[in-house]
Amino acid sequence: MKFRPLGDRILVEVLEAEEKTKGGIVLPDTAKERPQQGKVIAVGKGKLLDNGEVKPLEVKEGDIVVFSKYAGTEVRSKDGDEYLILREDDVLAIVED
Amino acid sequence: MKFRPLGDRILVEVLEAEEKTKGGIVLPDTAKERPQQGKVIAVGKGKLLDNGEVKPLEVKEGDIVVFSKYAGTEVRSKDGDEYLILREDDVLAIVED
Amino acid sequence: MKFRPLGDRILVEVLEAEEKTKGGIVLPDTAKERPQQGKVIAVGKGKLLDNGEVKPLEVKEGDIVVFSKYAGTEVRSKDGDEYLILREDDVLAIVED
Amino acid sequence: MKFRPLGDRILVEVLEAEEKTKGGIVLPDTAKERPQQGKVIAVGKGKLLDNGEVKPLEVKEGDIVVFSKYAGTEVRSKDGDEYLILREDDVLAIVED
Amino acid sequence: MKFRPLGDRILVEVLEAEEKTKGGIVLPDTAKERPQQGKVIAVGKGKLLDNGEVKPLEVKEGDIVVFSKYAGTEVRSKDGDEYLILREDDVLAIVED
Amino acid sequence: MKFRPLGDRILVEVLEAEEKTKGGIVLPDTAKERPQQGKVIAVGKGKLLDNGEVKPLEVKEGDIVVFSKYAGTEVRSKDGDEYLILREDDVLAIVED
Amino acid sequence: MKFRPLGDRILVEVLEAEEKTKGGIVLPDTAKERPQQGKVIAVGKGKLLDNGEVKPLEVKEGDIVVFSKYAGTEVRSKDGDEYLILREDDVLAIVED
Repeated sequence: MKFRPLGDRILVEVLEAEEKTKGGIVLPDTAKERPQQGKVIAVGKGKLLDNGEVKPLEVKEGDIVVFSKYAGTEVRSKDGDEYLILREDDVLAIVED
Repeated sequence: MKFRPLGDRILVEVLEAEEKTKGGIVLPDTAKERPQQGKVIAVGKGKLLDNGEVKPLEVKEGDIVVFSKYAGTEVRSKDGDEYLILREDDVLAIVED
Repeated sequence: MKFRPLGDRILVEVLEAEEKTKGGIVLPDTAKERPQQGKVIAVGKGKLLDNGEVKPLEVKEGDIVVFSKYAGTEVRSKDGDEYLILREDDVLAIVED
Repeated sequence: MKFRPLGDRILVEVLEAEEKTKGGIVLPDTAKERPQQGKVIAVGKGKLLDNGEVKPLEVKEGDIVVFSKYAGTEVRSKDGDEYLILREDDVLAIVED
Repeated sequence: MKFRPLGDRILVEVLEAEEKTKGGIVLPDTAKERPQQGKVIAVGKGKLLDNGEVKPLEVKEGDIVVFSKYAGTEVRSKDGDEYLILREDDVLAIVED
Repeated sequence: MKFRPLGDRILVEVLEAEEKTKGGIVLPDTAKERPQQGKVIAVGKGKLLDNGEVKPLEVKEGDIVVFSKYAGTEVRSKDGDEYLILREDDVLAIVED
Repeated sequence: MKFRPLGDRILVEVLEAEEKTKGGIVLPDTAKERPQQGKVIAVGKGKLLDNGEVKPLEVKEGDIVVFSKYAGTEVRSKDGDEYLILREDDVLAIVED
């Protein structure tokens, strides 16, 4: 069983956030929200434009992405695996090595 | 008697949600809303675009879909059968086996 | 005397809602609003598009439709007959036999 | 002295609302707002579209129209005559005999 | 010194409102706001459309216009003369003799 | 060091507002906000339109402009000079001699 | 490891704000928010237009930009380096020497 996201949505497996700085010190929270990272498991067909075309997404399967921790909806497969479904517009950046 | 959804709406039969994880443990609620699953019974003609065209929906009859539990409006047939009418945009993903 | 709805509006005669399930049991209200049914008496010319065209409505005279009970505005004819004027977008589905 | 409404606006002379049903019984107010009737005295040139064209209005001088009682702005001529200026989109229907 | 309004804005000299009816009776305020009258002193080049064209305004210099009393921003010239700058869309109607 | 405003923004040096009328009397505040004047120091390339074109601004370097006193964001150069960055749409009018 | 911003977003390294005026005096806060400066580290592919084209950004790598201090989301690399991800529309101006 798997989820196929609709339109401009993507399916993401959330990765553990690192809570410490380079020196190992936990930073106090600032007013700015801290985003999460995740691995893209599946992507929708794309964003429906006003002219009826579907624009493929910039994000693709396998990408590591950063997104707001308030974005998206949790879904769980029959096997109990948990994912997040986001709109691509909630993705801030792709993480590259 | 049956319902023919209008425009970009779909008619869904709600499926029982699974409330437990793989190990059978009921998860405490998080801040994120938990979505529902349903079977698509009927779909509208499509989404009316600005240029007057009607874009057929991505979801089709028979699909199992995941959607926000706050989405949609309940309707009941003369026989007492209950359904939900949603906009396609409220559908997060199609569940595939 | 009759009402000719403007644009994408329709004139509806409200039908009595059925308040019981198949077994005759009155269901407790849920958080989700319960829609109403009505018969379409007249329809507007259609929805004005950005390009100036008028897109005819999907709903037509004689259709039985389902709509949110909070939608629309009541109007009364000289004869005291009561109707509801809705936008077509407030119609969830057409009821077919 | 007269008022020439701008764009998609119309000038309306409000007609007395009938407050009783067929049998002469005053109906208690429901949650739904009760609309007003008026006679169209003048109409604007039309609605400005995104492409720069001006779409003539569907309503025309002399029409009897139904509109929400919360819509529009009152204007008074030098002679003390009172009118209402509405956008055509606030008009629910045209009343025909 | 003079003001040249930008885009779809107009410069208006406010005229004294008449507060009495034909018979000279001061009307009690209703829930509906009472508009103001003014003389158009200058108009902007027009409204910028989505396609980049500038659509000239319908209102022109010298027109007497009616507008909501909550619309616009007061400006004062070096000479202490006071004007109001409005968007043309805040103008309800042009007053003709 | 200088600021180059982005898109439809402009850089303005705020001019002292005159707080008195022709006769030298300080006017009591009305409900309407009082705008500010400023000199345009730099302008952005223009407003990005839906079709991808960039529409040059109507305001140009050297213009004296009137704008809402709540509009814009203050910026300060290394030399301590203070400016305001506004969108052109916040400009009400150009002041001409 | 590096971040590739999506669409019309940019990655910025925040620069220390100067808190003093030319004479070295710390200014009291006004009602207007004080913006921040940063160096652009990476930019997205551009803004997706309604017609499906992607419009390249005006800001480019290496630019020093000014932006609202409430804009954007903080991200941190594995090495503990902190950045801000903004939409280009949150950038007020480019700082030039």
